[in-house]
Amino acid sequence: MTRILSDSEAWDVLRRGKLGHLGCVDRDQPYVVPINYLVDEDCIYSHSLPGRKISAMRAHPHACLQVSNIQDDFHWRSAIAFGSYEEIIDQADRNSALRQLLERFPKLTPVESELARDAEPPPVIAFRLRVDHVSGVAEE
Amino acid sequence: MTRILSDSEAWDVLRRGKLGHLGCVDRDQPYVVPINYLVDEDCIYSHSLPGRKISAMRAHPHACLQVSNIQDDFHWRSAIAFGSYEEIIDQADRNSALRQLLERFPKLTPVESELARDAEPPPVIAFRLRVDHVSGVAEE
Repeated sequence: MTRILSDSEAWDVLRRGKLGHLGCVDRDQPYVVPINYLVDEDCIYSHSLPGRKISAMRAHPHACLQVSNIQDDFHWRSAIAFGSYEEIIDQADRNSALRQLLERFPKLTPVESELARDAEPPPVIAFRLRVDHVSGVAEE
Repeated sequence: MTRILSDSEAWDVLRRGKLGHLGCVDRDQPYVVPINYLVDEDCIYSHSLPGRKISAMRAHPHACLQVSNIQDDFHWRSAIAFGSYEEIIDQADRNSALRQLLERFPKLTPVESELARDAEPPPVIAFRLRVDHVSGVAEE
């Protein structure tokens, strides 16, 4: 049976996940990309090199993150968080966010791993979605 | 190394996949849901009960489907197809689309499986995205 998740169940799916699908709007077109992320309080943190999703969210900050927790075809939960894009500009906040992301995702790409070695900082963008509301469904 | 996929490589990722993430725009908000799908020629076919994604795409037909083909953290391909939502109304076309989807996804939900038993038709909606263009990236 499919049922609606409570907000706290939906947050639980979001907190347990590591890979989500970010949705944004690029000049009236939906755009979806898989991202690694982490949840802290009411925000979802991630990082990216400059590119289409960053340009899209700078222009149109509404975004969402869909996360699935799948056991099998008949036992799964899916949650979605809706929020607003915020770029993390403050240097201390940015370092803190990137450090937490590195801890959670040690296998970062070479470019991103440079950060950990204090090399010339690459143009990695740290950002958060400030979550406005969540929803979710489950089949159990 | 990350590289851009050719159109034919992106189509290959789309054709091999079964689960994708559909992105659409619901009153200016991006919305993302996982769906099962199949590709036939330049269209992506799927089905759904009435709900938010169907209402959103009826109002705003731009949609996309993101599909990943992941071996491990350093060997993956991701493709995205951008297109327009079309509801399949014609009865013969609808039956044909639902039959192909049933063949590809025998474990449909009970409601949807009713179709195969010629019971009272449930309000399952068959739809296609007519693909306008594709893109993709790979790490290999």
